[in-house]
Amino acid sequence: MTNEVIDICKRAAACAPRLAGLETRTKNGALLAMTEALLDSTEELTAANTGDRERAAAEGTAGTLLDRLTLDPSRLASMADGLRAVAAQDDPVGESVSEWKRPNGLVIEQVRAPLGVVAVIYEARPNVTSDVAGLCLKSGNATVLRGSSIALESNRAIVKVLREALGSAGVDPDALQLIPDAGREAALELMKAKGLVDLLVPRGGSALIASIEANATVPFIIDGDGNCHIYVDASADRNMATAIVINAKTQRPSVCNALETLVVHEGLVGQWLPPALDELSSRGVEIRGDERVVGVWPKATRAEEEDWSTEYLDLVLAVKVVGSFDDAVEHINTYGTANAEGIVTDDPSLARRFAAEIDAGSVFINASTRFSDGGEFGYGAEIGISTQKLHARGPMGLRALTSTKYIVWGDGHTRS
Amino acid sequence: MTNEVIDICKRAAACAPRLAGLETRTKNGALLAMTEALLDSTEELTAANTGDRERAAAEGTAGTLLDRLTLDPSRLASMADGLRAVAAQDDPVGESVSEWKRPNGLVIEQVRAPLGVVAVIYEARPNVTSDVAGLCLKSGNATVLRGSSIALESNRAIVKVLREALGSAGVDPDALQLIPDAGREAALELMKAKGLVDLLVPRGGSALIASIEANATVPFIIDGDGNCHIYVDASADRNMATAIVINAKTQRPSVCNALETLVVHEGLVGQWLPPALDELSSRGVEIRGDERVVGVWPKATRAEEEDWSTEYLDLVLAVKVVGSFDDAVEHINTYGTANAEGIVTDDPSLARRFAAEIDAGSVFINASTRFSDGGEFGYGAEIGISTQKLHARGPMGLRALTSTKYIVWGDGHTRS
Repeated sequence: MTNEVIDICKRAAACAPRLAGLETRTKNGALLAMTEALLDSTEELTAANTGDRERAAAEGTAGTLLDRLTLDPSRLASMADGLRAVAAQDDPVGESVSEWKRPNGLVIEQVRAPLGVVAVIYEARPNVTSDVAGLCLKSGNATVLRGSSIALESNRAIVKVLREALGSAGVDPDALQLIPDAGREAALELMKAKGLVDLLVPRGGSALIASIEANATVPFIIDGDGNCHIYVDASADRNMATAIVINAKTQRPSVCNALETLVVHEGLVGQWLPPALDELSSRGVEIRGDERVVGVWPKATRAEEEDWSTEYLDLVLAVKVVGSFDDAVEHINTYGTANAEGIVTDDPSLARRFAAEIDAGSVFINASTRFSDGGEFGYGAEIGISTQKLHARGPMGLRALTSTKYIVWGDGHTRS
Repeated sequence: MTNEVIDICKRAAACAPRLAGLETRTKNGALLAMTEALLDSTEELTAANTGDRERAAAEGTAGTLLDRLTLDPSRLASMADGLRAVAAQDDPVGESVSEWKRPNGLVIEQVRAPLGVVAVIYEARPNVTSDVAGLCLKSGNATVLRGSSIALESNRAIVKVLREALGSAGVDPDALQLIPDAGREAALELMKAKGLVDLLVPRGGSALIASIEANATVPFIIDGDGNCHIYVDASADRNMATAIVINAKTQRPSVCNALETLVVHEGLVGQWLPPALDELSSRGVEIRGDERVVGVWPKATRAEEEDWSTEYLDLVLAVKVVGSFDDAVEHINTYGTANAEGIVTDDPSLARRFAAEIDAGSVFINASTRFSDGGEFGYGAEIGISTQKLHARGPMGLRALTSTKYIVWGDGHTRS
């Protein structure tokens, strides 16, 4: 087992220098070939997926997980769309970050270069397989995938089809590797493949993240929790505030950019808050409020301290009343997870202060936190949302899969 | 002990949000106050340093280390110059990385923001104390310093003077913290201050780096080895090649950007190589060459396999003959440490290929690798040279001490 994971990483690493030198048109040609290949292989891919789902159902897998696992013609079409969107993105490799000339005449260029080998550990969704393969190829990186055991045959089939497409487009198929062992040991080997893996992105729950933090010796980026807030200031447009809060809480409550705590300026407690909570309640949202919330809207249950730090991922909303903008910022910076935080206000200077003082990957002014997403940012397919500060923060686009390199041009320069 | 380190980190973290909001002119005012304070406190600082040196000498500390430890009026003047140079740098905080509008009208800005708390573990040089304090202040970060035990009184005195200067310039002195315990336990506490330290930069030898890699739970950037190469292509200007190789090897052999292995195209073995090696030898450089080198220049000793991966940091040079450009790239990518690598060539397309194919933080075309340095890049004082690929690679300027943040401007946008 051990040797298999290392051998896979070595094949990817051996391929990486050639990928770094690929021309944009070659990469885009390969992405379009991958698109075609997915669409042309619908039967083969859905058959493999049916096998996975039957095995999972026989083992008593929950319905929501079976739904995530499902690959049907419409989902294959979205996967193909994702690859097309990646082909349409600008190529980050070779992009100039900055360039300057020193007084001694040296010209220094800082340019983007691929990381090398990018590995992703992920759960049941088979679309991640093609999304990651596409993003890594476009950014000039080799890919090592380690999916969930319940999706193993689906992933094998997708990777086989995509590797054939790479080969047909003149790209070494070793650019895309799947670890065919979904056991815990194989994941640990991957986390410890120092020198072979340049970036590991875990896409999974807190147990996976804890394991990475405890065991990984390779560089990684954490895609962590989202205890997201929206602060409705006294200056807010009332209707806009209601619409944004309802959207952020109810449009898809199970995801990391959904709203978890509403923070309200006390000036709105008498007028705006009760009808807004009525609206939320009518959509099935349970309200847990502080004393003042319960005072004006008695259907609310009283929030406990732990509610402020809970990511419900469900139709539950904590509601906190604050006396000032500063108190709102303090509450959010204390309990937030630095993922996506929003403000509704008509005051641009307050919006600027919120953007500067809130410590988060993305700050939303008069917009739903649900837009914290690679696709919504225009990044094509999604590699994840970084909740750390080093390297990349917030939704990660192709640039997040690159490093930089200095190229220094001299004319016989020596240092004195 | 444990609580002391954590308390220090907490004071820095509590200060960080205010530092993030400081205006550029306030930060520059504080940097100039720090400059003045260093120059005005020459007596106090050199007296503290004399105490450190006397204790170190009594303990039998080596002369080179005593020299590094020394603080005299001329070194204080360079420290003051370093702070002035940082004041002259552009403020990275709030700098726009990119900005675009989505088809739905959302405007997305990506701006630079401070990391928060930056900690540095370093060795005897007291100039690092003011360099790091200045760079962190300008980039809006709080600083936690942990210097060497032999420099403890010097560091205490410098930090006291700089904190007073911060206070006089309207900046919270808690922005600058020194851990007054130079023991191993205190360093371990700092490495594990997760959630309080946003970036740890170790400036030390391989034992410190190994300890960070084994123990750190806070994010860190490695400033690692430099097994640097220069490839002299057949197309090189002969005199330029000689001058660059001599400079890179002999100008300061003990540092990480000094040349360690010369890679020579076989076309130069008969003509250029022997006189170049004569020149090096006349400057006291010992030559360890492969078979072909020894064949044309018999004074060379025969290089062993381990010579190709040794960072001598001394007047010793390994010399390798290659049959082609591709062989040179392969040798360098195999044995290099991805720090600084150079080529001497008259062919711009070969230079471009070298820049693209060599996996290193900095690539030098017709220039000495000795320019791989924050000061030489124009970054003012130096925080270090990253030998990793995530976040920052190569010499680190102020931008390397920032993260980015997305600010998304809507007009009531909700997601459907």
